[in-house]
Amino acid sequence: MRIQVGIVGAGPAGLMLAHLLHQHGIESVVVDTRTRDEIEGTIRAGVLEQTSVDLMTATGIGDRVKQQGQVHHGIELRFGGQGHRIDFADLTGGRGVTIYPQHEVLKDLIAKRLADGGDIRFGVSDVRVEGVGGDSPTIRFTEGGTEQVLHPVLVAGCDGSRSTTRFLVPAPKPRQDHFRQYPFAWFGILAEAPPSSDELIYAHHENGFALVSTRSPTVQRLYLQVDPNDTPTDWPDDRIWQELHTRVSGEGARILEGPIFQKSVLHFRSFVCEPMQYGRLFLAGDAAHTVPPTGAKGMNLAIADVYVLSRAMAEYFAGGETGALDAYTATVLPRVWRAQHFSWWMTSMLHRMPEASGFDLNRQRAELDFVTRSRAGRTLLAENYVGTPLD
Amino acid sequence: MRIQVGIVGAGPAGLMLAHLLHQHGIESVVVDTRTRDEIEGTIRAGVLEQTSVDLMTATGIGDRVKQQGQVHHGIELRFGGQGHRIDFADLTGGRGVTIYPQHEVLKDLIAKRLADGGDIRFGVSDVRVEGVGGDSPTIRFTEGGTEQVLHPVLVAGCDGSRSTTRFLVPAPKPRQDHFRQYPFAWFGILAEAPPSSDELIYAHHENGFALVSTRSPTVQRLYLQVDPNDTPTDWPDDRIWQELHTRVSGEGARILEGPIFQKSVLHFRSFVCEPMQYGRLFLAGDAAHTVPPTGAKGMNLAIADVYVLSRAMAEYFAGGETGALDAYTATVLPRVWRAQHFSWWMTSMLHRMPEASGFDLNRQRAELDFVTRSRAGRTLLAENYVGTPLD
Repeated sequence: MRIQVGIVGAGPAGLMLAHLLHQHGIESVVVDTRTRDEIEGTIRAGVLEQTSVDLMTATGIGDRVKQQGQVHHGIELRFGGQGHRIDFADLTGGRGVTIYPQHEVLKDLIAKRLADGGDIRFGVSDVRVEGVGGDSPTIRFTEGGTEQVLHPVLVAGCDGSRSTTRFLVPAPKPRQDHFRQYPFAWFGILAEAPPSSDELIYAHHENGFALVSTRSPTVQRLYLQVDPNDTPTDWPDDRIWQELHTRVSGEGARILEGPIFQKSVLHFRSFVCEPMQYGRLFLAGDAAHTVPPTGAKGMNLAIADVYVLSRAMAEYFAGGETGALDAYTATVLPRVWRAQHFSWWMTSMLHRMPEASGFDLNRQRAELDFVTRSRAGRTLLAENYVGTPLD
Repeated sequence: MRIQVGIVGAGPAGLMLAHLLHQHGIESVVVDTRTRDEIEGTIRAGVLEQTSVDLMTATGIGDRVKQQGQVHHGIELRFGGQGHRIDFADLTGGRGVTIYPQHEVLKDLIAKRLADGGDIRFGVSDVRVEGVGGDSPTIRFTEGGTEQVLHPVLVAGCDGSRSTTRFLVPAPKPRQDHFRQYPFAWFGILAEAPPSSDELIYAHHENGFALVSTRSPTVQRLYLQVDPNDTPTDWPDDRIWQELHTRVSGEGARILEGPIFQKSVLHFRSFVCEPMQYGRLFLAGDAAHTVPPTGAKGMNLAIADVYVLSRAMAEYFAGGETGALDAYTATVLPRVWRAQHFSWWMTSMLHRMPEASGFDLNRQRAELDFVTRSRAGRTLLAENYVGTPLD
């Protein structure tokens, strides 16, 4: 089957790319080993930048996010027993972020793709991408017991942080993988309780970081920085609540308790692979880079990648120009690295590093003071949290 | 000899404290093991914040700094072959810094103190401070072969980074010393050459940091980040110029060469001792904290300390109130730690860490981009470089 673009992976990057390409009149096939139910049922948090919501709205998938998304015009940084609000609206000219889970974005994208006659192959197996370095790449997979072969002109590797397409870029040249591991993990819970706060609370405490977020009026999502070797059995409910009360304490702080119905340990790292192109293969989203969740950038970076990539592909199919395609890595990497820096900065500023000295801890508290007491500091944080323009 | 305040050390902290106390009608004696010639002849760089110059002017020692100091309304951060000006004047409402060497400040202070009848004992030996934990502290020293004893009501430890008075605060309780070592040093030269730049250039390069500064229209001060074990013999003139041209390169960059007449290796660290008070002893300036020179904060922190300390001592001598004296540590430490953070930040952002990974180097370049491309980022840097208000 000859097609314009073959897309490996039906996550935010792959589905959004297929959707944006369709806006340019370019058709694609998306393949994923997961079923539609698995994709739509894997519950994930989500913070959308203003530009991500704007792009969804401009391309006809903004109805549900407008109705159901919660617009947040600020976050609280809490340290030394005091809350310090970062007022996005005031600091960035009315901008904010929208809390809207990733799987809801995926539901919107899948519904729209199918309504537009898009071709998504769910639940396939044995996906093999070949020949991306030459003129005739192929995507082979098994579907309903039968081997299928796609002959795309271009291939997009959108298969997430456990990407296999990434490895089609030969290493150590040209592919370089840049990692940073963090010496801690997040212990996350879902609890049946009313919201403890209208906005997200990022709490720095000498025991470690805590994050208070809300999933719905009756379900709360709370995180604690823990040792990376901890397991849910190390954290009985009492210990969780006690630690949350300790870390999110002081003036105006409260944690509302309720039955805990899910516990999990989240490991994360910073990662960038470059270049993001090899021949006819283009990597986008988590396949090329992952960020710690502290900066809430993951889904937005995927959207920013495919926004650039869809336009470059459109330019190529319109007139055969490869300039924008060849510039893809150089175009998107500066944003990727700034987002990496921002995510590293939020993570470093708010977590307790196990090896921190007395100097480090005092400097870290001074940094929180330095950033929050100055309008310029709050603005630098706010404008990066709400997101910079796509162009 | 009964006196109000005994001051150990005739550096910026000690002499400025004596001067400010005199403004409040409080007399002091300053003792130093160095001669006046040594103190006035030890050539040191100096960057004065606006508030430091304002305080000098308001207290009658501002004439020479106004005439001879060079007011700088910006610095350049250079990386990736591009200069990025941090326009202090535009970003901070017309503020700037004044380049005026530290020994010139000391000359001004000594001249003024002597004109005001101040008592400074230069070139003494065997300085011993005792009894600061009780009601009757003493400062003993040998002057012209004779032992002298001062009986001050209060004692100020202003004896610099090699302070001995600091050790009068018992450790490990209450005294805690917080250090951070850096895995590099600065190789500094003085050269007979015209200025390469009107303003300071802070250059980040993959070979390491370089700083371009000017001492006078005919003498330039240039620094290179080097291995801490390097000595001047490792750096023949040719190698120095070659490395400066390499690190300070790209659009609009130039390094003007000339005969090098001094070479030295500068080691530095971040250090804070707390508390800064013990009984009747009060530490100020480098005796209590040192910063790497990257943030240009050293002399200004000393001035900020003694500004607070002089007012607290005045309040005590006026009515016996110890509230402000007892609050000294808590009053000045937040500024000290913010300056520590700022100096650490400038140092970390601009130097090449020997152990840096590919991720670290890319993140560091992204941080320079993140800070300089945003007005908020430039403002955060500028407002801390020019200095925050004393009150």
